[in-house]
Amino acid sequence: MDVSLPTTPAAEALALRYGPDAVPAAGPWNEHIALLLTHRSVRGYRPDALPAGTLETLIAAAQSAATSSNLQTWSVIAVTDSDKKAALAKLANNQKHIEQCPLFLIWVADISRNQRLGQQEGVTLEVMPYLETFLVAAIDAALAAQNATVAAESLGLSCVYIGALRNQPQEVAKVVNLPSGTFGVFGMCVGYATEAALGEVKPRLPQEVIVHHEAYRVPDDEAQRRSAYDGLIGGFSARNEMATDTWTKRVIGRMGKLAALSGRDKLVATLHAMGFELK
Amino acid sequence: MDVSLPTTPAAEALALRYGPDAVPAAGPWNEHIALLLTHRSVRGYRPDALPAGTLETLIAAAQSAATSSNLQTWSVIAVTDSDKKAALAKLANNQKHIEQCPLFLIWVADISRNQRLGQQEGVTLEVMPYLETFLVAAIDAALAAQNATVAAESLGLSCVYIGALRNQPQEVAKVVNLPSGTFGVFGMCVGYATEAALGEVKPRLPQEVIVHHEAYRVPDDEAQRRSAYDGLIGGFSARNEMATDTWTKRVIGRMGKLAALSGRDKLVATLHAMGFELK
Repeated sequence: MDVSLPTTPAAEALALRYGPDAVPAAGPWNEHIALLLTHRSVRGYRPDALPAGTLETLIAAAQSAATSSNLQTWSVIAVTDSDKKAALAKLANNQKHIEQCPLFLIWVADISRNQRLGQQEGVTLEVMPYLETFLVAAIDAALAAQNATVAAESLGLSCVYIGALRNQPQEVAKVVNLPSGTFGVFGMCVGYATEAALGEVKPRLPQEVIVHHEAYRVPDDEAQRRSAYDGLIGGFSARNEMATDTWTKRVIGRMGKLAALSGRDKLVATLHAMGFELK
Repeated sequence: MDVSLPTTPAAEALALRYGPDAVPAAGPWNEHIALLLTHRSVRGYRPDALPAGTLETLIAAAQSAATSSNLQTWSVIAVTDSDKKAALAKLANNQKHIEQCPLFLIWVADISRNQRLGQQEGVTLEVMPYLETFLVAAIDAALAAQNATVAAESLGLSCVYIGALRNQPQEVAKVVNLPSGTFGVFGMCVGYATEAALGEVKPRLPQEVIVHHEAYRVPDDEAQRRSAYDGLIGGFSARNEMATDTWTKRVIGRMGKLAALSGRDKLVATLHAMGFELK
């Protein structure tokens, strides 16, 4: 193991991620794992441009992720144009960091490329209209995007996923000219974080609630663990966010009322219109 | 940048990933990016056990990935029991590496935990029956799984995603006791690769076909680039796989006939039965 990098020690990184009372058992550790543990979603960017070749490096990382049967049913749109970023920000609930960041990536579930292959070869690709095919494309885009995130963060850059790109997918498609059989699964800001925007590592639910051994079993103490996590995340929220919120309140706020989906309750009809039959 | 690790040079790693004729522009580089570039899916494992605490480290990496609105709608089942692995291998098209690997992970889209939260708090969570909610859960499981993959590979372990876990999802659910509102999105083998199973880095489509600048535009030379890639992947296939295959043939083989979905054409009905209404 390398010792020349200022690798965050395991105990410290795990305590930040789980809180001092829910640190998991110590396991193997290195500088790569330390990098993953320090991830923070960043919503404020300096205008500084990225070094030459950064996009190519991020995409090489992204394409190195696994892809189902090597079908590679995803694409990415690299947006740097100010007007386009402003238009996309407007469509994604006016998130100002989409305009701020020097590079905005749209991760696209793309079955159109393979569809063109079928047309050029004179073959009907029977699996295209199925939910399974859309799901594979969305998952492969996600695996690729996560590798790009890791690569970006290793370079001192920050990122944030933008799920609100699904609020108005057909309008997004117009801005970046998406053809039928493509769908912007989510966006991603890439850039250098402002000091104010680089908050603490956000605590997650304890491993005991997420991991099941050999079979799924609801922990007897699930509600108590949630209550403890509410306290932990409440403290994080008070120190890092505009309003203090427990996890329980956040989940109810985000999942309780349909209005919180900001139009995403129409996703099935939208995908039908965009060339995904979802059979 | 650290220089003490045997980091694969950028030019070498990119040439392996894209072939010598499609190497992208050189960009920033470090040992983290080199790790990502060397990913290979591995389908043969030694029986060696994992070091103590490996699962906890992989899960800490996984939970450090972004999750939509911090909803954390995913879980993971860690399977080490031989009988369970054998049963799962049988359900996933008899893939022997599922039995071989010391740790088999099932990455689960899990809306049941937040559903329990709603019940305990006496609140109806209106977004639960929507496709958007399933999609968020599946994507969040994918982001988590990719971080776990990177962490595992940084420790000298290998992995392979098992999409065939979706061939018979309700049977998988029985093996690991999945409740309503959970769905095994994919499996993942984790272990030490046998020498024979650790093949070359698999080449991908050239970046020009995957990346679009400012807007989607089908490259004029898309068909020629596919033809060049067919040659590249054909060589890889001849050296590393049982039968030589071009990408064009592979796509048609995998997407041409419904039978290739191995039952996944029934995914909508299956998800309905498993507690995902997909409205």
